[in-house]
Amino acid sequence: MNQIKGNLLYGQSGGPTSVINATAYGVITEALHNQDVIDEVYVMRYGIQGALNEDFFTMTKQDLEQVELLKHTPGSAFGSVRYKIKSYKEDDTDYVRLLYIFQKYNIRYFLYNGGNDSMDTCNKIAEYMQNVDYDIRVIGIPKTIDNDLPFTDHTPGYGSAAKYVANTVQEVAYDMLAYPQGKVTIIEIMGRHAGWLTAAAGLANLSGFGPDLIYLPEVPFSIEKFKSDVRRVYSENQQCMIAVSEGLINEEGILIGSSGGLKDAFGHYQLGGVGSKLSNIINSEMRISSRTIELGTTQRASSHLQSLTDVNEAIEVGRTAVQFAVAGEHGIMVTILRKTGKKYEVTFGKHPLKEIANIERVIPPSMINED
Amino acid sequence: MNQIKGNLLYGQSGGPTSVINATAYGVITEALHNQDVIDEVYVMRYGIQGALNEDFFTMTKQDLEQVELLKHTPGSAFGSVRYKIKSYKEDDTDYVRLLYIFQKYNIRYFLYNGGNDSMDTCNKIAEYMQNVDYDIRVIGIPKTIDNDLPFTDHTPGYGSAAKYVANTVQEVAYDMLAYPQGKVTIIEIMGRHAGWLTAAAGLANLSGFGPDLIYLPEVPFSIEKFKSDVRRVYSENQQCMIAVSEGLINEEGILIGSSGGLKDAFGHYQLGGVGSKLSNIINSEMRISSRTIELGTTQRASSHLQSLTDVNEAIEVGRTAVQFAVAGEHGIMVTILRKTGKKYEVTFGKHPLKEIANIERVIPPSMINED
Repeated sequence: MNQIKGNLLYGQSGGPTSVINATAYGVITEALHNQDVIDEVYVMRYGIQGALNEDFFTMTKQDLEQVELLKHTPGSAFGSVRYKIKSYKEDDTDYVRLLYIFQKYNIRYFLYNGGNDSMDTCNKIAEYMQNVDYDIRVIGIPKTIDNDLPFTDHTPGYGSAAKYVANTVQEVAYDMLAYPQGKVTIIEIMGRHAGWLTAAAGLANLSGFGPDLIYLPEVPFSIEKFKSDVRRVYSENQQCMIAVSEGLINEEGILIGSSGGLKDAFGHYQLGGVGSKLSNIINSEMRISSRTIELGTTQRASSHLQSLTDVNEAIEVGRTAVQFAVAGEHGIMVTILRKTGKKYEVTFGKHPLKEIANIERVIPPSMINED
Repeated sequence: MNQIKGNLLYGQSGGPTSVINATAYGVITEALHNQDVIDEVYVMRYGIQGALNEDFFTMTKQDLEQVELLKHTPGSAFGSVRYKIKSYKEDDTDYVRLLYIFQKYNIRYFLYNGGNDSMDTCNKIAEYMQNVDYDIRVIGIPKTIDNDLPFTDHTPGYGSAAKYVANTVQEVAYDMLAYPQGKVTIIEIMGRHAGWLTAAAGLANLSGFGPDLIYLPEVPFSIEKFKSDVRRVYSENQQCMIAVSEGLINEEGILIGSSGGLKDAFGHYQLGGVGSKLSNIINSEMRISSRTIELGTTQRASSHLQSLTDVNEAIEVGRTAVQFAVAGEHGIMVTILRKTGKKYEVTFGKHPLKEIANIERVIPPSMINED
């Protein structure tokens, strides 16, 4: 394929992970190594919003030591955004604007780093630019703690979040076991549709201190089954630790954690929270003391527990994206492929964005036990 | 004072901290070094309950490598308990039982490790044994993440919890700042009456990423003042981070986080939670998006963020307690004394238990700003 000379534009989108800035590091350093085809590296401030507003960081003007620090900087260093771009068939305002910006800044490489929604955005931009014959390489770079992007073995960000969850669950289990007569402790973990992160709580059991019960959004949740599970474990151990996904749904497909018109003493609607709902049931209906811990934002923010493997893979997907772009690829997402064999090893591949956009990969039934 | 030869009994009580087992390490190793006067080292399983039930671990039979691991073991390795012993003037059943156990096992050194309630227990036992002329050395060893024991500069456990809080608040602030249009993020921190741990959230500001507003239980909380504070910060920055103590009370002394008869969709009482209450007010009355993070048990369990200073001081209070006991001290708690001067240095002292029991040390007004 033909090589084009021009500038590169990179952006971060969706919820931060503790390694998304490591990917930024990979993109920026690799782009600066390809100065035969890439003149300038721009980074959007606040994702696609920065692209639409001409709000860029100019990387050749940055201190390289600062770029180095990105490897271990939490959050989204350049800002992120949740902005769902419309289909260009419905409303092409944003696309016309982007084309204008791309032309004005001679953007020939567009790299977008995010999860499902961001890959959808990326796919739409790739298609539009092709339709209007604007010569550009559009590449998606995966990122999400939810691990729910398809066609990649796993996603950068998941490993560190899983490490944080497993570690925290283990520490809370130690804490619980300090008492002779325990409680039912419920830990609520992120993951609206996919239970990968909740499943990671099970890793704590490798140390002997982990959850007795795990409930995933992939399996319809039955309150009666739940109560009988809790009763069984509690009668055996006088304590019980439970990991639940925030996205648990019942047999009718209704979120267990949705607020359901609940008002507090001030007359305001309560935020949902499947953990506290289930705790209330255990407290009041089963008369067993129970408490909930909602891990919340800390799961994606806890860069002090970064997984080194995750950091290195996050850097590599960034580098690989630049290499693919320079080699002429367009409309693809970088993927992580697991090598066969006992030793953990990966390579990096690609998959068409149009087959990825908006698809969520959940845990396959074969990986979930009957209970 | 006269030295007595016999056995030592040590127990842990109240909520675990990430360094209470480091204190156990200090006690056990120092006791094993004093075999001229201490024959056997017993540790209660589940605190005072283990003492009453003759449920002990025998330390001379333990693997020394296991004892070494205690320095970095989270939770209460020997189990803890929340059991408030009655006054012996009211009901001396437990005391008569303890005396029997002490005589049976020739316990001449009794070391109890905990917070306010535990120092009360310890004080009562010290007084009773003196009254019945049983020759024993009773020593309290401080421990609490709340930092609310008097007559000690600070308490072992606080440093690590404060480090965890400051670090987590900083990471959540980084996460929040990823977005152009922010939320009001409320972090709920432990501390029912004393705001020391909540105040530690302010340390995150040293990095430039910390809370805009901090509310402590020492200052009566006004909803109107709170709303005007939030409005001011939010209108300036389009985001706002707030640290609140779980124990906030209003001008009438009523807990803001108490559940107040609130029921959910299932008809069950909701657990309180000052953070989610305040979030609801911001969401519904102020029409600003808000979320809450309750740090919960992780604050005392997160031994992966142990402060090394805290670990070392925790070991030293344990060692010092044994040294005081062997030297003939009775009815005192070990204290940490801060040396004057710029460099952080401490020594260890003692204070009568009867002046400590059940007193909570709160943050003095001079350390709190007008706002």
